[in-house]
Amino acid sequence: MNVTVTQLTNQLLASYARAGGINHLDGKNLPSKTAVCGITVELLRLLFPGFFHDTVLHSSELRVETAALMDSVLGKLEDEIYKSLEYHPLEGMAKKDLRPAAQKATEEFLSGLPQIREMLQTDAEAAFRGDPAALSKEEVIVAYPFVEAVAVHRLAHELYKKNIPLIPRIMAEWAHSRTGMDIHPGATIGSHFFVDHGTGTVIGETCEIGNHVKMYQGVGLVARSLSGGQRLRGQKRHPTIQDRVTIYAGATIIGGDTVVGEGSTVGANVFLSHSVPPGSLVLPEEVKVKVVSKTDRARAAAWPGPNI
Amino acid sequence: MNVTVTQLTNQLLASYARAGGINHLDGKNLPSKTAVCGITVELLRLLFPGFFHDTVLHSSELRVETAALMDSVLGKLEDEIYKSLEYHPLEGMAKKDLRPAAQKATEEFLSGLPQIREMLQTDAEAAFRGDPAALSKEEVIVAYPFVEAVAVHRLAHELYKKNIPLIPRIMAEWAHSRTGMDIHPGATIGSHFFVDHGTGTVIGETCEIGNHVKMYQGVGLVARSLSGGQRLRGQKRHPTIQDRVTIYAGATIIGGDTVVGEGSTVGANVFLSHSVPPGSLVLPEEVKVKVVSKTDRARAAAWPGPNI
Amino acid sequence: MNVTVTQLTNQLLASYARAGGINHLDGKNLPSKTAVCGITVELLRLLFPGFFHDTVLHSSELRVETAALMDSVLGKLEDEIYKSLEYHPLEGMAKKDLRPAAQKATEEFLSGLPQIREMLQTDAEAAFRGDPAALSKEEVIVAYPFVEAVAVHRLAHELYKKNIPLIPRIMAEWAHSRTGMDIHPGATIGSHFFVDHGTGTVIGETCEIGNHVKMYQGVGLVARSLSGGQRLRGQKRHPTIQDRVTIYAGATIIGGDTVVGEGSTVGANVFLSHSVPPGSLVLPEEVKVKVVSKTDRARAAAWPGPNI
Repeated sequence: MNVTVTQLTNQLLASYARAGGINHLDGKNLPSKTAVCGITVELLRLLFPGFFHDTVLHSSELRVETAALMDSVLGKLEDEIYKSLEYHPLEGMAKKDLRPAAQKATEEFLSGLPQIREMLQTDAEAAFRGDPAALSKEEVIVAYPFVEAVAVHRLAHELYKKNIPLIPRIMAEWAHSRTGMDIHPGATIGSHFFVDHGTGTVIGETCEIGNHVKMYQGVGLVARSLSGGQRLRGQKRHPTIQDRVTIYAGATIIGGDTVVGEGSTVGANVFLSHSVPPGSLVLPEEVKVKVVSKTDRARAAAWPGPNI
Repeated sequence: MNVTVTQLTNQLLASYARAGGINHLDGKNLPSKTAVCGITVELLRLLFPGFFHDTVLHSSELRVETAALMDSVLGKLEDEIYKSLEYHPLEGMAKKDLRPAAQKATEEFLSGLPQIREMLQTDAEAAFRGDPAALSKEEVIVAYPFVEAVAVHRLAHELYKKNIPLIPRIMAEWAHSRTGMDIHPGATIGSHFFVDHGTGTVIGETCEIGNHVKMYQGVGLVARSLSGGQRLRGQKRHPTIQDRVTIYAGATIIGGDTVVGEGSTVGANVFLSHSVPPGSLVLPEEVKVKVVSKTDRARAAAWPGPNI
Repeated sequence: MNVTVTQLTNQLLASYARAGGINHLDGKNLPSKTAVCGITVELLRLLFPGFFHDTVLHSSELRVETAALMDSVLGKLEDEIYKSLEYHPLEGMAKKDLRPAAQKATEEFLSGLPQIREMLQTDAEAAFRGDPAALSKEEVIVAYPFVEAVAVHRLAHELYKKNIPLIPRIMAEWAHSRTGMDIHPGATIGSHFFVDHGTGTVIGETCEIGNHVKMYQGVGLVARSLSGGQRLRGQKRHPTIQDRVTIYAGATIIGGDTVVGEGSTVGANVFLSHSVPPGSLVLPEEVKVKVVSKTDRARAAAWPGPNI
C-alpha cells in the first residue's frame, strides 16, 4: 500500500468512527439482497412453470423440476427469514425461538403458493382482456412488466402479513428497479388487477384496492406529507379504491380517508384529495388551447413551437 | 428430499393441473428472453460501431469485427424468429415453410440496418441540438438512455412490420426495463426524434409521430380505456403527433382520432383528449397560489410547509 | 463466412463510411461504462461500510477491508479520469499534464468522501423521519432506491465541479437506470434531502435545492424548451427550490428564474412556470366530479366505468 492509500483510508476510518447511522459494523447479519433476489427468481419459476426456461418444459419432467426448485427455495428462504427475525424479533420471541419460527414461517408461506397462483391467473386474464395490444396470454406473461410486479407483490404481501421484516421490502424494491412499479408489500390488492405500462406507479403501504381495478403508468396512491413522520406509523394513510375503478396515467390520489367509489373513472393527471361516490367521473379542468396568430404561425412552423 | 418438500411439491403440482393459463407445459418453444436480449446488444454494437468497446476500435479491424458480429447475429436471430413463427405462424404458412421464412426475414431485417442507422443519426443530432446540457455527441450516445430506447425501437419496429410475433415486444420490454421508456414496436416515428430524460414515457401501438418531435419524461400517448378490449385490436387507438411538436413532461394525450397539429406545444401534465390545430399552445388552467397568513407563516417556516 | 454475411457486412461498412456521427472509430479512448459502474459500486461500499457485504463486517477487519477497496478504486478511477481528460482536456492542458492532473483529481476526490458521508447521513435521517412506512434506518439504506440515487449524485457532483467530462454523466445514468431518478451531476442539493419512491423524478443541471427539501416520484425541475439549444449552455435554466419545500408527485417546475420560496408546498401534477413567495401553497384547479345518472349507474357498475 502506498502512502496515499494509507492516508485516504485513515481519513475514512475517522469518518466511520465519527459519523454513525450509515455504517453497519459488528451488528447482526442483515438478510442478503443477493440471496433474496435469487429466491424471488426461483419463486417466479414455481409460479409460472415453463415460462422462464430456455427449452420446453415437459409434464414428464415437471415433478422432478418442481421438487428441486422447492427444495432450493425452502432452505435458502428459511435462512434469510432467520436473519430477519434475528435482526428484529417479533414481540416476545427469544433467541431459541428464532429458528423454529423461521422454519414455520417458510413452510406456511410456501404452502400458500397455490392460492397466489389463483390470484395471478385472474391478473393475467385482466391484462389480456384489457389490452388490445396483447397478442396472446403468452405475450402477457413473457413481455408485460406488470406480471412480474404483481407476482412479486403477492409474494411479498404474504411475508408482510407474517410480520417478517426487511425481506418483503427488498423483494418489492427488486421489482421496482426492474419494472418502475413501487408497490409497498403492505398494500391489499383484490383479484383481476391490471396496471398497464406501470412505470412510476406507486401504491402505498395502507392502500386497499378492490377487484377488477385497472390503472396506468404514473398513478400514485399515496399519503399526505404531514409533520407526524414516524408517529403516523400503523395508521391508514393511503386511499381506498373500490371495485371496477379505472385510473388513468399520472393521477395522484392522497389520504387515508379518501375513498374512490366503485365503478368510477379518474382522468389522467388529476390530483384528488377527497372521496368520490360510486360511478363518478373525475376530470381536471379543461385545457386552454390558444392558436397563435398568423404572424406567429410562421414562428410556430419553425421548431420548437410556441414558447411556454 | 424430506417430507416437507414432497408435500409442498404435491400441492403445487395439483395447482398446476387445476389452474392453467399461467403454465407453459408441453407447448411450443417460445423465443428465449435471454437470447433475444443478447441479440439486441449485438445489434446495438453493429449500429454504433466503436461506442460499446472497452478499447478504441480501429478502422483496420472494422471489417473483421463487423463480419464476426454479423455472423453471430444472423444465426441466433434466425433461430429465435423460427421459434416465433412456429409459436404463431403467419397466415397460410405450413410447417415446412417456417425455416425458409425465418431465414428470409432475418436477412431482410439485417439488410435494413443501414437505413436504421440513417434515422438514428438524425435522432442523435436532435438530442445534441435540443439539450444544452449535452457536452458532445459522444456524451449523447454514451450517456443518454433515449439513444438506446430509440435504437431498440427502430429495430423492433422493422420486425413488427414483418409480423414476427413476441420478439419485438421482448426487445421493447428489455429497453423499457433499462430506460423507463415504453415504446410499443408498432408505433411509427419520424426522423429527428428526441425524448429527454424519458422515464415513464409511453408511446402506444398505433401512434403516428412526425419529424422533429421533442418530448419529455412521463408523456403518455395512449388509448382510451374502453370496454371493447380485444375486439379493438388493429384499430387506431393512439394519437397522431404532427411535425415539430413539443410535448412537456407528464402530458397525457389519448385517443386514436386525436391529432396534435404541426408546430404545436403541449404544456406539462395536460390531459388532452381531442385534436388541436397546427400552431396550438395547450396549457392547463393556471395554478392557484395562496400565501398563508402571517400567523401561518411561522408554521410554514417549519418543515413540512402548508398542509394539503 | 458465407456469402450472406459478407454481403450484409459490406452494406454496413458502406454505411459506416457514409454516415458518421454515430461511429466512434480511431478516436480517443472513451471512459469505459463497465469500469465506471464498477468503481461506483466500490465507492458505495466505502460510503456505507458493512451494508453491502453478505456477512457481518467486524470492526477488526475494517481497516484491511477499507484499505483494499481504496487501493482498488484509486487505481481504476485515475485511469478513467485520464481517459476523460484525454478525450476533452481542460483549458490549457497539454498532453504531458494529463496523467498528473488525473492523479491529483482522483486523490482530491477521494479525500472528499468523509464530507460526502456527512451529507448522506442527513439524507438518511430525513428519509427515516419523513416516511412512516420505514421500519428502521437499516431498512432505509437497504431498501430505498433514493439512498443509492442521492449517494451517486453527491459523488458525481464532486467530479462535475472538477470539470471531469463524461464520467459524472455515466455515473448518473447508471443510477437513473436502476432507480428511475435522473439527477444531473451539475445540480446543487442541500442537506436533509429526500425523494420518496422517486421513479420519473428529474433534476436539471442548473437546479439549486436548499436544505430539508422533500419531493416525490415524477417531480420535474426542468428547463423551458427554447430554440436556443446549445447556445444556452452554461446559463441557469432550471429552478431554485428554497429550504423546507415539499413537492408532491408529478409536479413540473420550469425555468431558470423560477424560485419556490422557503417553506412552500407544491401540489401534485401542478405545472408551475413562475416564482412563488415563501410559505406558498400551490394547487391546481379543483377537479370536476360528475356522478353519472341512475341509468348510467348500471353502466358504471359494469367494468370499465364511465368513459372519458
